Formats: sequence, C-alpha cells, structure tokens
Amino acid sequence: MNRIYDRVALIGLGLIASSMAHAIRRAGLAGEIVGTARSEETRETVRELGFCDKVVDSATQAVEGADLVVLAVPVGVMDEIAREIGPHLAQGTTVTDVGSVKRSVIDAVAPHIPEGVHFIPGHPLAGTEHSGPRSGFATLFDNRWCILLPGETSDPDALARLRAFWEGLGANVDEMDVDHHDLVLAVTSHCPHLIAYTMVGVADDLRRVTDSEVIKYSAAGFRDFTRIAASDPTMWRDVFLNNREATLEILGRFTEELFALQRAIRTGDGTLLFDYFTRTRAIRRGIIEAGQDTDAPDFGRGKTK
Amino acid sequence: MNRIYDRVALIGLGLIASSMAHAIRRAGLAGEIVGTARSEETRETVRELGFCDKVVDSATQAVEGADLVVLAVPVGVMDEIAREIGPHLAQGTTVTDVGSVKRSVIDAVAPHIPEGVHFIPGHPLAGTEHSGPRSGFATLFDNRWCILLPGETSDPDALARLRAFWEGLGANVDEMDVDHHDLVLAVTSHCPHLIAYTMVGVADDLRRVTDSEVIKYSAAGFRDFTRIAASDPTMWRDVFLNNREATLEILGRFTEELFALQRAIRTGDGTLLFDYFTRTRAIRRGIIEAGQDTDAPDFGRGKTK
Repeated sequence: MNRIYDRVALIGLGLIASSMAHAIRRAGLAGEIVGTARSEETRETVRELGFCDKVVDSATQAVEGADLVVLAVPVGVMDEIAREIGPHLAQGTTVTDVGSVKRSVIDAVAPHIPEGVHFIPGHPLAGTEHSGPRSGFATLFDNRWCILLPGETSDPDALARLRAFWEGLGANVDEMDVDHHDLVLAVTSHCPHLIAYTMVGVADDLRRVTDSEVIKYSAAGFRDFTRIAASDPTMWRDVFLNNREATLEILGRFTEELFALQRAIRTGDGTLLFDYFTRTRAIRRGIIEAGQDTDAPDFGRGKTK
Repeated sequence: MNRIYDRVALIGLGLIASSMAHAIRRAGLAGEIVGTARSEETRETVRELGFCDKVVDSATQAVEGADLVVLAVPVGVMDEIAREIGPHLAQGTTVTDVGSVKRSVIDAVAPHIPEGVHFIPGHPLAGTEHSGPRSGFATLFDNRWCILLPGETSDPDALARLRAFWEGLGANVDEMDVDHHDLVLAVTSHCPHLIAYTMVGVADDLRRVTDSEVIKYSAAGFRDFTRIAASDPTMWRDVFLNNREATLEILGRFTEELFALQRAIRTGDGTLLFDYFTRTRAIRRGIIEAGQDTDAPDFGRGKTK
C-alpha cells in the first residue's frame, strides 16, 4: 500500500501534470486523480487518454475534497488560479506547484492560501522539448531532482508527505532557499534556454545561409540548441518575465565572458582559448559521475543510431 | 568488391581517423590502412587496438605508396604536415583532409601539393564529445553529411572516387564553396560551441552557485551545453583561430539578438519573447523531418533511460 494522498487534484494538464499522473498510477500513490485544464480541447484529450480518474471543468471543482493540489500551469497564471481556488481549499490540504521560478510564484500564490492549508512550493527539474497532455510519460521524474521550498513555518508532516510523494514519483528530493533556487536555475536552465533560442533565431535570420543548410548541417553542434529552443513558448516567456533579476545578472556575466573569448579570437590568443576549453571539460565529467548523464557518445548522433 | 583505394594513409589517429578506419573495414573500401600519429603513445594504442593494418612512425612513411592520404590532424598543424609530406606524394595520389574550417586549411596545404597530385579538401560533419583513437566507431558517419570542396581545376575522376569513398563510409556527400562553408559552419557549429563553452565557464566561475549544484541540476537545459563544451580543446582552439572572420561576424549578430531579448526581459515585453520562442520551434521540426534527429523526447533525459 503506497497510497500517500486520497485525492490529488492536477490543475493544468500539460507535460508535467500528465507525467505526474502516469507516475502516480505506476506507484499507486493516490486513491484518485482529478484533473482540470482551461481549454476544453485539452480536457477532452485527457478524458480520451484516461490518465485521470476524473476530468472536471474548473479548478474550483478540481480542488473539492483533494488533500493534494498541484498547480501545474504556466507561472504567469499562478496568481489567477490561486485567487480562484483559495476560498475552496479545505483545512489540512497541501498545495504545491511545479513552476520553474519560485520567488514570483510564492508572491503570487501565498496571499490566497487560507490559514490551515499547507503551501509548499516545488520544482521538478525534468522536462522534454514536447508539451501538452499527450507528451507525458511515467518515467519523466526517475532519478531527476525535485526541489521543495518549504517556509520556516511549514508543517513538518505535510512536508514529509509531499517529499515521500515525489520520491514515489521517482525523483530525488532536495530543499532549497527560494532566492538561491532562482539563481541556480538561472544558471543551469533559464540562461542556457535563452542563449539557445537566440542562436537558433540568428541562424534563422541570416539571409546568406539558408534554413535548409542550417537543418542539413545541424549535427555539428546546433542540433542540441534546436532541441532546447523547441521548448514551450508560453512557459518560457513566463519564466523570463518572472525570474528577471537573476536571468539578467547571469546574462551579464555571460556576455562579459563571451566578449573575453571573442577578443581572444580576434587577437589570436590560443593559450587563453585552450585553457578555457580544457577547464569546461571537467564539469562534464562531474555530471556523468553524478549520474545525470552517461558518457555514451551522443553529440551530433542522438537517437538515430 | 567495394575497394576504392589500394592504400589509405591516415595522418593523425583521433576520433575521426579511427572512425574512418572502422568504417573502411566495415565496407571493405581499402586494400590496406596505414596510420601514423605524432605521439608514440597514440601509435602504441592504435597498434594494440588493431584498426590499422600498419602503424608507422612518420607521415612521410605513411604516404608511401598510398593512393589516398587523409589529413586528420588539428587545423593548426596542417601546414606543417603538408610541408613534410609534399615531396613524398606520388603522381595521381588524392589528398584530402577532415578539418572543420576550409579557407585556412586550403591556404596552408595547397602550396605544398605537387602538380599531378589531387588535393580535394573535405569536412565530415560528425563527431562526439570524446577524442582520441579509442573513441572511434564504424557508424560515426552514417547518414551524416560530408562536404567536399573541389576547386575549379579538380580532376573529375579523383573527385568521383573520393565521393564514392565517403558514401561507402556511410555519409551523404555535398559540394560547397569554400567561404560559404566557413560561414555555414560558423552558424551551425563554431558559434554554438563557443557559446556553450562560455556558459559552462560562467557556471563554473560563479561563487554563489557551487559546482555540485550546477552538476546536480544540469538536467534542466545545461546538460546539452556541457556535452558540447567537453569537445577536444586543441581542435576547437584551432577552429576559432582559423575561422576568425566568420565566427566574429556571427557572434556579433548573436550578441545583437541577445541584447534585444535581454531588453525584452527587462522591459517585460512578453509578446516579443513569445513570438521569438514560437519561431524557433519551426527550425527544430525541419531538423527532425530532415532525419538529422528524432522527435523522441530527450531533453534532460539522455541515455539514462
């Protein structure tokens, strides 16, 4: 008997929520899964796919009787949803979210959470470049990290249950300070995404190089950028607008470093380039050792083998 | 009988040359493979691995009796090798290379090629983040592109043979103008590499975010950057020093675009961000349709499944 919650309400039914549903069922973590999404089309798709026990038309209906409510909507609509469901949350319910930025989500959600309801923000570091309810799969969180961001007054039992729930979904759970989270993610996720989007945009823009050339010769490094730059536009717009300060800070550092390397290219400083490129190899080694990737040769090869 | 050359000489025995040797054997494209490398250690490793029929101590020895000579050394030493082998090349021999930049390789090599020897520069767009003779494998070039850059006076028969050879190695072959090649590769390969190196460098530098945090949370986008940034430092130093103009031009465009997106984040222009991110999705679709990748969800997941 692995059941941790009697009724889990998923608000928003995209890649993350649909993967959660599949993984909840895999491990038997909930008595019942209720889902809702704003668009009728999405709700219809989910009814057809059948990964929720019940699909309802509004967030208010979804939270009724739920002991866990998961806000799995773009960061930009968290405020609206929280405002809507706040008055309908029962005492003792746990509310969590899966947003990629945390300070602004907490600012948006916390004011609407009634006394006696446990709001524990969360962020599973997992995803693919696909979006929508059809893109979810049960193993998405396996061996990935989920960061929980309890406040000082968070209820220890509610936190322990939520942690066990995420572990049941396959994830490793970490706790982190809110602002530190937003900085770490600016480095490991938000800035890399913006940079990939930019490089793909430049390639698309350049008149002297055709799109078909870019596409044909993408194996040479560009391919990974296009995968990153294919991620959900709404989600990423909201991430950047809501993690503005940390993103701009890291982009500032990035530009500074890029200018230094650019200058080394211009002046022919091979030693600087060689030393820089040697140093970055070590980080890769660390990632492989940490089990977040394997050292199987992949670059430019992908799944086509 | 697939034999195209009687004796292929591989000068340099890293990832590309060792993969060529494996693929030559797979398809029976050569009577004999002779290899050489500057370092005694590499030569010893290759003797042990056995993918060459003969390993010799110098480039001059290697080219003796060869009807195809492949220069598979970093771009920065092409000049030196060409100078060394030039006087020992027999009439009718084909010389090619696998360098990632072409204008500077041609400038370095062509003056040392005697009359009656066919120099046809080449560039297989394939690789992994690993280097050295142990990292080669026979399928590296399968369904990848190899660009050949014949001059106006190139011998048609020599070109046809070299093309058949690369097709035998598994590649699709294209011909391209030299300067256009260097621009296209600046976009699809050289700039993405520099950007990835830079972002990984920034992460490593940032005192407030530990390396272990970067490593743990790399699944969120950073992972692909570290793979790119783990590529061979010597090779990449030489690429940037030898494709200076095109790289700096594209980096200039990149910075301009990045500043525009940075400004949109600062001013909160969500529409600009959303439209930009939507546009870049289309390129990804094109790459999948062109067979250079699959749409299996990969981002942040990799080979650990």
